[in-house]
Amino acid sequence: MITLLSDFGSQDAYVAVMKGVIRTIAPNAQMCDLTHALPPQDILAARFNLMLAYPYFPVDTVHLAVVDPGVGSERRGVAVQLPGGFLVGPDNGLFSGVLQWASAIAAVSLTNRQYWRSEEASCTFHGRDIFAPVAAHLDRGVSLLALGDRIDPNTLVQSALSPATQLREVPVAYAGSLQYIDRFGNLISNIPGDRVPNSSWRAVVEPVRSGRSPCPTYVQGHRTYSDVPVGELTALVGSHGWVEVACNSGSAAQTIGASVGWVIVLEAI
Amino acid sequence: MITLLSDFGSQDAYVAVMKGVIRTIAPNAQMCDLTHALPPQDILAARFNLMLAYPYFPVDTVHLAVVDPGVGSERRGVAVQLPGGFLVGPDNGLFSGVLQWASAIAAVSLTNRQYWRSEEASCTFHGRDIFAPVAAHLDRGVSLLALGDRIDPNTLVQSALSPATQLREVPVAYAGSLQYIDRFGNLISNIPGDRVPNSSWRAVVEPVRSGRSPCPTYVQGHRTYSDVPVGELTALVGSHGWVEVACNSGSAAQTIGASVGWVIVLEAI
Amino acid sequence: MITLLSDFGSQDAYVAVMKGVIRTIAPNAQMCDLTHALPPQDILAARFNLMLAYPYFPVDTVHLAVVDPGVGSERRGVAVQLPGGFLVGPDNGLFSGVLQWASAIAAVSLTNRQYWRSEEASCTFHGRDIFAPVAAHLDRGVSLLALGDRIDPNTLVQSALSPATQLREVPVAYAGSLQYIDRFGNLISNIPGDRVPNSSWRAVVEPVRSGRSPCPTYVQGHRTYSDVPVGELTALVGSHGWVEVACNSGSAAQTIGASVGWVIVLEAI
Repeated sequence: MITLLSDFGSQDAYVAVMKGVIRTIAPNAQMCDLTHALPPQDILAARFNLMLAYPYFPVDTVHLAVVDPGVGSERRGVAVQLPGGFLVGPDNGLFSGVLQWASAIAAVSLTNRQYWRSEEASCTFHGRDIFAPVAAHLDRGVSLLALGDRIDPNTLVQSALSPATQLREVPVAYAGSLQYIDRFGNLISNIPGDRVPNSSWRAVVEPVRSGRSPCPTYVQGHRTYSDVPVGELTALVGSHGWVEVACNSGSAAQTIGASVGWVIVLEAI
Repeated sequence: MITLLSDFGSQDAYVAVMKGVIRTIAPNAQMCDLTHALPPQDILAARFNLMLAYPYFPVDTVHLAVVDPGVGSERRGVAVQLPGGFLVGPDNGLFSGVLQWASAIAAVSLTNRQYWRSEEASCTFHGRDIFAPVAAHLDRGVSLLALGDRIDPNTLVQSALSPATQLREVPVAYAGSLQYIDRFGNLISNIPGDRVPNSSWRAVVEPVRSGRSPCPTYVQGHRTYSDVPVGELTALVGSHGWVEVACNSGSAAQTIGASVGWVIVLEAI
Repeated sequence: MITLLSDFGSQDAYVAVMKGVIRTIAPNAQMCDLTHALPPQDILAARFNLMLAYPYFPVDTVHLAVVDPGVGSERRGVAVQLPGGFLVGPDNGLFSGVLQWASAIAAVSLTNRQYWRSEEASCTFHGRDIFAPVAAHLDRGVSLLALGDRIDPNTLVQSALSPATQLREVPVAYAGSLQYIDRFGNLISNIPGDRVPNSSWRAVVEPVRSGRSPCPTYVQGHRTYSDVPVGELTALVGSHGWVEVACNSGSAAQTIGASVGWVIVLEAI
């Protein structure tokens, strides 16, 4: 089983090219698209979606991810072995979300050209020439360590996003970042849902964590979308397990005008 | 064989999450996307596309459909057995199109948590937690009646669309509703193509059936798109079997400015 | 293995209808989408993407392509056998790209109704009624010549695009056409990459080949995107093997305002 994620979009046949390469090496591989409609070169969006889907796939799934603005430069191509599967792609922070939750067993830099499509890779499409062939070989049972030089998983590139931190204990409050806006306009923070207190709570959304932002948005916490009237904002723990701000039958992103990187504070009230 | 339809769009990995869940339960299930690019929460569009694709799939196909604005509220989750396959999803009118043409053999409310992903479902993503697991179990051969409490298929929620009705016999005329606009801008009515007379005929498109609408559009009936010059409107029986109004190499929706729910009258002339 | 390409978009279930038809005839066929998000009726875009993906698929793959503005008119439906696979679709220039590189072994007009979905095809959806069933039968091993009347492959419709031609030998220069703009805004010419000289070179992009266009854009040749600063234009040989003009982390199409059919000149400097 191989999943595919990229920013190649749906108009061009670049994704199909990768699938043809995989099919040629591993004729019986099952393939599943995670998404290819990410904004071009949006590593944060790729990181989130890979983290979102990863836990739901069978053990030994190979996750191939290609959002690669640095293709042709010095950035490494890597493969990582986890208890629940493999990650293959450029080392640019793509995998930092999954690696928050799953510990790497081993990682390699993809230097063994025997598992590339041919000895020479293009400068512009490592997805086709390196990552897809490597994913296909992993799916067929080639061992991770055969693919190149072993590297320390701690050297893999981390995300640029500020992690969630506790602001105070009583009443409890956490500050985090808006890490993703989905197609419904839900504002998904990087504050884990298990931080939500048993008491009443709210989310505060603002461009910069200042305590005196010109116009923070305060949103009451609830259990599900339909706990508020249609068109109204609600904060809740989304199905993905993160604290999010949503709008019942509408778009919280449009209502608030927020974008990725904004601050979201969770506080008991 | 499992088909998947949703309004999850292509940017987020929510569809892939459902596929991962299915793959974990039914490793060999074949999957086919119907569409995931429906306008968010557009039950009528989902209803039409499911009805469009249903007849072309092999017997015993499981059709999983998740357009679910009422998730977390009291609406039922259901599975329906038909002579040609199964339907799984929320009971909100999604299935009313297919059920116009195919009689339900049996239907159940999905109350048996043994076939959910886990005993507890989230409040916001029953596609992942209930419907995808149930579809996977059906594909593996679990019997419909094991999935929950039997319900009367006649209690399934119907569509809000006005059905097509005969206005007069001589000259023959039917009034129906614009039930779907496809990506080519074709205006697809809910008047079955076999109502088209052997004589000359036309379609009348108007916002409200008044007989004195300020600006109805009259469109001559033909056999195919290229029976009129490029850029001109034509009425015809579309490949889906419904009377539609189209524009040769253009968009009838843009030309006329019509939207779903408008009236389309078919009349012999 | 069957690949599918169309301009049906992702919103409507028309692609799924073709897949259901294929699945009913060939239950074990593997299917791979090339793209369905082409601009409606854009034969040149379809031609390019088919040519892009074709070389990467296993021998004996059946490539089903349906961009068919002439459906219902007199245009032929065809199947073509190549050393590396089969092509199935309307004869309107779709296949002219692949046929530049691969010689047809044989070609037929799809006149044998035994391999259609039923004796009567609709006037508007030959993808469902003729091309998908024929592709499924080819995948199951039906011989090409059984599908209809043999035709001369040289009579297949050619592309409207001006081919690349040599302008002079010293210093070397070629004139070609802008044949495709991909989702990253890369301007892909029809000048093969092996025409690029070892010396310095540049690409000239202009609306009409005049030698005195009001504002041609001159773009220096490099090896890869990151050889120029972010936001700057570069000419290079793309991963597809054609000379292209790109913008590092941006869109060359937006920067230059070019469109398909513009002239691109490659010249040593």
